[in-house]
Amino acid sequence: MLKKLRHFPKVSTKSHRDEFYHYPGTVPGTIIIDADAPPPTILLIDYNQTDFIRRQVATPEECIPYLDQESVSWVDVQGLGNQDILERMGRVFELSPLVLEDVVNVSERPKVEDYEDRLLFIARMVVPKERTYGFYSEQVSLILGKQYLLTVQEEPEHDCFEGVRLRIEKGKGIIRRQGTDYLAYAVLDAIIDGFFPVLERYGEQLEDLEEEVIAKPTRKTLQKIYQLRRELLQLRRAIWPQRDAINALIRDRSELISEDVQIYLRDCYDHAVQVMDMVETYRELASGLMDVYLSAVGNKMNEVMKLLTVVSSIFIPLTFIAGIYGMNFNTEKSPYNMPELNWYWGYPLCLAVMGFIGLGLLFLFWRRGWLENSTAIKRD
Amino acid sequence: MLKKLRHFPKVSTKSHRDEFYHYPGTVPGTIIIDADAPPPTILLIDYNQTDFIRRQVATPEECIPYLDQESVSWVDVQGLGNQDILERMGRVFELSPLVLEDVVNVSERPKVEDYEDRLLFIARMVVPKERTYGFYSEQVSLILGKQYLLTVQEEPEHDCFEGVRLRIEKGKGIIRRQGTDYLAYAVLDAIIDGFFPVLERYGEQLEDLEEEVIAKPTRKTLQKIYQLRRELLQLRRAIWPQRDAINALIRDRSELISEDVQIYLRDCYDHAVQVMDMVETYRELASGLMDVYLSAVGNKMNEVMKLLTVVSSIFIPLTFIAGIYGMNFNTEKSPYNMPELNWYWGYPLCLAVMGFIGLGLLFLFWRRGWLENSTAIKRD
Amino acid sequence: MLKKLRHFPKVSTKSHRDEFYHYPGTVPGTIIIDADAPPPTILLIDYNQTDFIRRQVATPEECIPYLDQESVSWVDVQGLGNQDILERMGRVFELSPLVLEDVVNVSERPKVEDYEDRLLFIARMVVPKERTYGFYSEQVSLILGKQYLLTVQEEPEHDCFEGVRLRIEKGKGIIRRQGTDYLAYAVLDAIIDGFFPVLERYGEQLEDLEEEVIAKPTRKTLQKIYQLRRELLQLRRAIWPQRDAINALIRDRSELISEDVQIYLRDCYDHAVQVMDMVETYRELASGLMDVYLSAVGNKMNEVMKLLTVVSSIFIPLTFIAGIYGMNFNTEKSPYNMPELNWYWGYPLCLAVMGFIGLGLLFLFWRRGWLENSTAIKRD
Amino acid sequence: MLKKLRHFPKVSTKSHRDEFYHYPGTVPGTIIIDADAPPPTILLIDYNQTDFIRRQVATPEECIPYLDQESVSWVDVQGLGNQDILERMGRVFELSPLVLEDVVNVSERPKVEDYEDRLLFIARMVVPKERTYGFYSEQVSLILGKQYLLTVQEEPEHDCFEGVRLRIEKGKGIIRRQGTDYLAYAVLDAIIDGFFPVLERYGEQLEDLEEEVIAKPTRKTLQKIYQLRRELLQLRRAIWPQRDAINALIRDRSELISEDVQIYLRDCYDHAVQVMDMVETYRELASGLMDVYLSAVGNKMNEVMKLLTVVSSIFIPLTFIAGIYGMNFNTEKSPYNMPELNWYWGYPLCLAVMGFIGLGLLFLFWRRGWLENSTAIKRD
Amino acid sequence: MLKKLRHFPKVSTKSHRDEFYHYPGTVPGTIIIDADAPPPTILLIDYNQTDFIRRQVATPEECIPYLDQESVSWVDVQGLGNQDILERMGRVFELSPLVLEDVVNVSERPKVEDYEDRLLFIARMVVPKERTYGFYSEQVSLILGKQYLLTVQEEPEHDCFEGVRLRIEKGKGIIRRQGTDYLAYAVLDAIIDGFFPVLERYGEQLEDLEEEVIAKPTRKTLQKIYQLRRELLQLRRAIWPQRDAINALIRDRSELISEDVQIYLRDCYDHAVQVMDMVETYRELASGLMDVYLSAVGNKMNEVMKLLTVVSSIFIPLTFIAGIYGMNFNTEKSPYNMPELNWYWGYPLCLAVMGFIGLGLLFLFWRRGWLENSTAIKRD
Repeated sequence: MLKKLRHFPKVSTKSHRDEFYHYPGTVPGTIIIDADAPPPTILLIDYNQTDFIRRQVATPEECIPYLDQESVSWVDVQGLGNQDILERMGRVFELSPLVLEDVVNVSERPKVEDYEDRLLFIARMVVPKERTYGFYSEQVSLILGKQYLLTVQEEPEHDCFEGVRLRIEKGKGIIRRQGTDYLAYAVLDAIIDGFFPVLERYGEQLEDLEEEVIAKPTRKTLQKIYQLRRELLQLRRAIWPQRDAINALIRDRSELISEDVQIYLRDCYDHAVQVMDMVETYRELASGLMDVYLSAVGNKMNEVMKLLTVVSSIFIPLTFIAGIYGMNFNTEKSPYNMPELNWYWGYPLCLAVMGFIGLGLLFLFWRRGWLENSTAIKRD
Repeated sequence: MLKKLRHFPKVSTKSHRDEFYHYPGTVPGTIIIDADAPPPTILLIDYNQTDFIRRQVATPEECIPYLDQESVSWVDVQGLGNQDILERMGRVFELSPLVLEDVVNVSERPKVEDYEDRLLFIARMVVPKERTYGFYSEQVSLILGKQYLLTVQEEPEHDCFEGVRLRIEKGKGIIRRQGTDYLAYAVLDAIIDGFFPVLERYGEQLEDLEEEVIAKPTRKTLQKIYQLRRELLQLRRAIWPQRDAINALIRDRSELISEDVQIYLRDCYDHAVQVMDMVETYRELASGLMDVYLSAVGNKMNEVMKLLTVVSSIFIPLTFIAGIYGMNFNTEKSPYNMPELNWYWGYPLCLAVMGFIGLGLLFLFWRRGWLENSTAIKRD
Repeated sequence: MLKKLRHFPKVSTKSHRDEFYHYPGTVPGTIIIDADAPPPTILLIDYNQTDFIRRQVATPEECIPYLDQESVSWVDVQGLGNQDILERMGRVFELSPLVLEDVVNVSERPKVEDYEDRLLFIARMVVPKERTYGFYSEQVSLILGKQYLLTVQEEPEHDCFEGVRLRIEKGKGIIRRQGTDYLAYAVLDAIIDGFFPVLERYGEQLEDLEEEVIAKPTRKTLQKIYQLRRELLQLRRAIWPQRDAINALIRDRSELISEDVQIYLRDCYDHAVQVMDMVETYRELASGLMDVYLSAVGNKMNEVMKLLTVVSSIFIPLTFIAGIYGMNFNTEKSPYNMPELNWYWGYPLCLAVMGFIGLGLLFLFWRRGWLENSTAIKRD
Repeated sequence: MLKKLRHFPKVSTKSHRDEFYHYPGTVPGTIIIDADAPPPTILLIDYNQTDFIRRQVATPEECIPYLDQESVSWVDVQGLGNQDILERMGRVFELSPLVLEDVVNVSERPKVEDYEDRLLFIARMVVPKERTYGFYSEQVSLILGKQYLLTVQEEPEHDCFEGVRLRIEKGKGIIRRQGTDYLAYAVLDAIIDGFFPVLERYGEQLEDLEEEVIAKPTRKTLQKIYQLRRELLQLRRAIWPQRDAINALIRDRSELISEDVQIYLRDCYDHAVQVMDMVETYRELASGLMDVYLSAVGNKMNEVMKLLTVVSSIFIPLTFIAGIYGMNFNTEKSPYNMPELNWYWGYPLCLAVMGFIGLGLLFLFWRRGWLENSTAIKRD
Repeated sequence: MLKKLRHFPKVSTKSHRDEFYHYPGTVPGTIIIDADAPPPTILLIDYNQTDFIRRQVATPEECIPYLDQESVSWVDVQGLGNQDILERMGRVFELSPLVLEDVVNVSERPKVEDYEDRLLFIARMVVPKERTYGFYSEQVSLILGKQYLLTVQEEPEHDCFEGVRLRIEKGKGIIRRQGTDYLAYAVLDAIIDGFFPVLERYGEQLEDLEEEVIAKPTRKTLQKIYQLRRELLQLRRAIWPQRDAINALIRDRSELISEDVQIYLRDCYDHAVQVMDMVETYRELASGLMDVYLSAVGNKMNEVMKLLTVVSSIFIPLTFIAGIYGMNFNTEKSPYNMPELNWYWGYPLCLAVMGFIGLGLLFLFWRRGWLENSTAIKRD
């Protein structure tokens, strides 16, 4: 009672718990900095078809010279632990207080907002854990302007943008020939595609659980199934609004996004739908697994009961017979008092009857198939 | 039978039970005053960019001089226990009987109604209980006019508007520079944001219940899960129509609400959607928890049955053997009658056989893993 | 087998069973009179702002002089047991065969139909039973003309229109100053509001069942829960189409209904939505209760099993020991044959060992908490 | 293993199994004749306001003279077992191969198709079985032309058109004064109304099952519930698309259907909606019944367990006491060795203690209410 | 532990596991070749009303001369295991990188995309396994141009196009007189119709499982039901988007598809809806079967418990009586010490009492119907 034990391995990082809510009645646009949040690091990537710069900058103001150039500037802020820097960044990128609040509040629902000269896209990125099931989840805000893309990540570890950065650096594909809209698509696509490896792990876990549930259901299996359902629910909450937001992006045709990139976005939308499909399928399978678990527990109890019943049904009658001949009726007082005790073949006959009854019952149980099943338990 | 016991701690305050319904056939617009309702207190806040007045007024008529001024007037009525005052207030604010009925009937469904020169918004406010799980819930009616905002609360205790009042008093944010529409938004936003702390508590309770259900499921756990589901259902009934009403407010663009405040309302709408999302997620988790509970109960029965079966299966055959040698067949009448009784090593041999059988069965059960699990019970 | 017992108290009156269906292939517009239907009584209420007449009339034709006057005429037919009267009424009010069929067929789905010069509204009215849970349900057809309102009830007992009649008689509210459309609204509103007292009873029953299900679940509880679910399903089938019909009435703006009454109808629609909300909430609670019941039954079995296991696990080993010393090995043939029997402290030692084992097992069970729970059973 | 037993009474006739699918890759419009299909019989009914002809014709070509007349011709083909006749009929009525395929393929989904000069309506007709629960189901195709109605039934037995035929023959209602569109409505209406008697039977079966499930749940009850759910699912699959098709008919206003008949079709649509409502309600009840069954099985096991526990808990301790005094400790070796055996009142005291313990336990069980319930079992 | 056993027979071929996802951050349009994928074989069919050519070609370039002719060319690529050939094919048919990626990525969601001069249709084809339940599933991409149809299958084994190829070769139906659009329809129709034989097997399996679940539910039955549900879920994921895609094809009226073929496509759409209907019905049945299974397991445990209870309840009291008369109270010390032992009829009376009690209990159990049921077990 003193020490509260945590049986559940905690998967969720802080951002899962939705605990940084607006305290009722606070001024809208208030920035709340979580004490545990890591300090922000700023990575600037600036490129056009010929040039490429990638450097870590210390202050948001250092980005200013790059923003007005013709080249594409990608400012990637990682970590939300410094109010001063966040506010200066707000001034550099001319973000309204409401936008800044959305960016900093790490439990926003994915959404898109069109402010004519810029687009705000709140996304949720998932990264699979290395050695175990589960995933890290963090919020990524994309602010797309004419000449720049600002992305704000919740924390510096775990992102899935390295592939995009490499494509820019190496000039793979058409990314160096395209504008900020294509860059925003590439980042968004990396976020959506980041769901697949997470889902694949759950697919594997589901298969493992299937076997476990039928062969050897224990209390731990139950924990795992529930845990799995909870995490799939989190994935679902992350992907649904994301899909809606991408759809809104395609439908509302912002001027910031060219026709060509629209086609790529449709591809990205298809992938989001596919993620959703898989999440829903896995959820149905996990919920079916719970039914199977319940049945398997019932089955197991059946086997236990059968063993008890077989043992009891065979030995209880036999013990009764032994009990009869353990009675002390006085054989001398009357020829009818337990004459068997004095028979010449009394004891062997008694044993024979017991053996006959015991084997007979065993035979009956065997014919009903009860013995087979109780052997089946042994195999597990 | 004489004394009806209440095992369930009652969470719901009166307004939850929807018990003040229109008695079929009564005149529409009838005001029914609940005998237990607290008497109304009226708080007047009047402010513009430079001035600020906050005072308790005794009669609705005292508000009249403030209503026509250029300044923003917020009349906050708390408590519905006095028909006379309510009717006079209806006259002061020129409320139609149907509106007044909606305001006084404390089990209305959240909704918005546009009467051109004023807006009626029926909302439901939740405030978390201090020491325990659960929440107080009360109806708040907002009547938004050109120069005033009238809010009517069900009872004076528990509201979540203090933050708004302080922002006005201290002049924090832009509230003092804005009109009644912004004030109405601020109040509405405080109501929606008031759901988050309540939900956070349920999130914690869910985690506690998860552990409890797997480690030590008792009848009390069952009660708590059901209770949780019931309260989440209440939250759901409160937030769904609220979201629809805010959506209608945004979509129908009343003239009383400026463009700027529309943007803030969209933010408020996002939060309402987020609340809904969380409620639905928690409901799914709670319903999954019930499945887990059922399985855990089955599991526990399995453990109990296993213990019984192990004990019975080992001792029943042994007792049978003891029974055999407790029989009284006359060894003198025949050499075949229980000759074992007269063997030199008879008793030790018999004990040895018993020990062998007992240990053999124990070994079999150990190999099937039955002994492990029954130890697992001890750990709980 | 001879006498078929009805364990279920029948709630449903005949109209619930939907048993008067159109026999396939009959002429549309055929009137089928149920042999058990009560004979119709006709109540005429005629009023304007100054005058009021209320009288029982014997034949439909007696209403004719009232129908053409400027005053509002409300003809209320109660009971469907006389084909002749119903057909004459059809002629008096110029009802087409299809309309008359809808009116007489008491298992129609609530709906509204607009025939330009008149409106047909099929509604379902529920009235709570006096002493027990459950409700009477009957169909009410409203035919709204320019100068009259014809209502046809399935049977004369149980209606919820008395409040409306009194309001007309006493001149309460604005009803005497309004036309037939307002009267139709008042009747419809009384029908919708009639669901609230029925629902309140179910709310109470749900709370009672919650306690019963956790504290002392019996087979009767199961019956009650199923019964409750069935009746809520009936309520749901009654209120859903009714809400749709009122919505259609508001949306399609018949010329027979004035702008003012439209506003009142919206209020009535809000109440219908509230009823629906409550029905759905209660249905979810009742269905959750079934889960709780299943778990509670499992819990109870657990307690029973625990008691059995405790008793068996303690006494079976002890009985085995007693069995050993009940064996008849000949102590004279060998010093190894049950020497304990001849020890000086043999018997007390044996009892001491038994006591030690028994108390030890008891202690183990106590530490696992098994004894507590079995005491908990006693408390019920 | 040799003889495969069918425990389930098969309700479904062949057409239920959807087994005549298009083999992948076959030419569209291919007619597949089932070897078991009954040979077609053709019934011609030709009528106008004054004349009426009803005769069995041998070949489709015999219908030709009637088709061009002003009178209404109803050609009713029953049975699909002759490819030649079906193809000749296709030529007589100028049916395209795709239409003919739809007509002959007896597992089509109900639908409507408008070919300007004719309408194709694929419907599913159900006819209740005579002595048992369940129904026959067959496909009926209606082809509505200007001067004729062609109906093609899957088999000659069981239809629900006799009422329509009699109405034409006797001139009941307005059918003789109307065109082919009204005839098509009358046939469609008979098909929809044919669902009511089937549903009524299921309503009765549900009530019977309710009693059975609570009073005496056996394995057969389980079978029946599952069977019921399966058949309701079939009904649902039949009525949903039928409702959609009627709705499409009303919405798309074919030129072949007059304004007047549109009104009748709306009535028919209302009935289809009512059938759907009932099917859904029954499905919910049946699914609730399964929950009740599961709980009832648990309840019953509880009763069994209670009896076992009562018997064991009372007799196992008593047997232990008897065991103690059956031990053979040598009373002569020590005064502490079972001195009770030599007491004067030893045996009566021992019996008294046993009786006291036994009655005491019985009293405890009685107070817990365990004895009542086990008596309740007896009543079943 | 060392050897991980797979209890589940794996149905899914690789493409089911969705394991070839876009690695987050890769260039869109990247072609990933699975190492296990079979090398492509290319089958060219070229025909018009008079001529027909069918030949295996080695390189994509060999098709070029056929593509520009007036005749219809069907290039059918089977297998995706050679990147070079796929890329050359992309050049021959002028496929954009995004299209080629969709074609090669074998876990795309079925969809249709209209690129004005060509149509891309991603479909999923299922082929039933020969000897067992289950199906092979592979992706088929259709690219429809003016003069050619390119189909790309995942692997060369198992397709359902042989019927179409034969129809072309033999000139059956109208296929030789039609263009590429009709050919595309024929292929699509073969794919959709390919679901029916798969579903029919599941229909049969469902019936078998129904019997098994009620008569003899074992752990294997549970496996089979879960397996069935999982596979139906896969079918569902395959058919839903396929139906949507066909619908989009009909609705968006590409210029590549003539009016005539539109009508055929509607027929194809009807079949897709029918497949969906069946899948949903089977899923509901399978999920109902799980409930039945759980109940059946409970039922079986009931039977086992009954047997145990009958045996225990009869023999435990009898053994107790035998125990009493096995006690060693000294009959010589007191006339009250077990005088029965010395009675003349003592033993026979004792046996008689035992027999009476035993038969009496048996009679009670028989009257409660417990004996019948336990015989029922024997029958299984």
